[in-house]
Amino acid sequence: MRVRIALAEKGVNYEYREEEYFTKRIKSDLLLEMNPVHKKIPVLIHNGKPVCESLVIDQYIDEVWKNDSPLLPSDSYQRAQARFWGDFVDKKVYDVSRRVWSTKGEEQEVAKKAFLETFKVLEGELGDKPFFVGDTFGFADIALVTFYSWFYSIETAGQFSIEAECPKIVAWAKRCMQRESVAMTLPDQKKVYEFAVHRQEKQA
Amino acid sequence: MRVRIALAEKGVNYEYREEEYFTKRIKSDLLLEMNPVHKKIPVLIHNGKPVCESLVIDQYIDEVWKNDSPLLPSDSYQRAQARFWGDFVDKKVYDVSRRVWSTKGEEQEVAKKAFLETFKVLEGELGDKPFFVGDTFGFADIALVTFYSWFYSIETAGQFSIEAECPKIVAWAKRCMQRESVAMTLPDQKKVYEFAVHRQEKQA
Repeated sequence: MRVRIALAEKGVNYEYREEEYFTKRIKSDLLLEMNPVHKKIPVLIHNGKPVCESLVIDQYIDEVWKNDSPLLPSDSYQRAQARFWGDFVDKKVYDVSRRVWSTKGEEQEVAKKAFLETFKVLEGELGDKPFFVGDTFGFADIALVTFYSWFYSIETAGQFSIEAECPKIVAWAKRCMQRESVAMTLPDQKKVYEFAVHRQEKQA
Repeated sequence: MRVRIALAEKGVNYEYREEEYFTKRIKSDLLLEMNPVHKKIPVLIHNGKPVCESLVIDQYIDEVWKNDSPLLPSDSYQRAQARFWGDFVDKKVYDVSRRVWSTKGEEQEVAKKAFLETFKVLEGELGDKPFFVGDTFGFADIALVTFYSWFYSIETAGQFSIEAECPKIVAWAKRCMQRESVAMTLPDQKKVYEFAVHRQEKQA
């Protein structure tokens, strides 16, 4: 999703190929060839050469397709801030989000606490700014906003309101959703919930 | 170490302040103020403002102090490769290195296997190149070379030779050590071993 948002922001046409790992439990030969190290999506293939890891790809896209929608700010300090928050999201948000919907009971209570701690940090950083770094939608916003599609699953599984705890984050996410690049990329939150429930049932 | 190597490459003068967390178990007020999110070193304070996370700092240094020693290549694809390998080191190498010297018995055998798997990937990527990306010492090399100071500890604890398994990596590390920036920054491997043994004893 991070790569698709970035490509949409740049107005780049591309061929999209979906891996069928979740349904068929096999990885394509193309994926194994293009990302032999991690064997993971996403991979951007450009001029026949692969770029892997979503935040590395987004920086690559920003450098290759320079236009009026820069993903990273021009100021070096702000660029460092954008990279710092992208890294923070990578290190913290995936794990705390997944744990809320994939656990139960006491383990889930611990997960909810960790989720809210992480999102309170993000809420504090965002403050009254429209976007995370600088005044415009960019790299750090893309890194985080993809998790917005999981909010309904997290709230339903954890029985709490993210908006009640982190109103600025939810307002920010809605602001991001006003961008076509985000709205056309993020799946419907209820479909994500169905997917999450289905995955839990298969593992149970 | 990554930050000090980068600053040395750029010829930047700076004031170095050491945290005393390992000896006194307290974090300085300055650290807590400058890195409230992770509360971790390193922090680069430049123009009164903090930049955190070593690989974010190294990119910031490269952008602010442009000179004849670029840390990242100018070509966008090579830049993506440098970031990919820096990220790989962050995700994999710290954990597998620490586990070899901090565990025993069967757990250590698993750790050794994981260590060698990770370093064989790096050995394969390096191949016959002098440095990881492009022909010159740079970002990905800095990310990895700091772990060279742990090689003696890892070999002694794990009772194996890294050079026998990954000769190209060891030759590369020695090549990096010919650079003043690296040689003056990396601590003596035997001192690191004493530190590791001391730390294990305190935890036992």
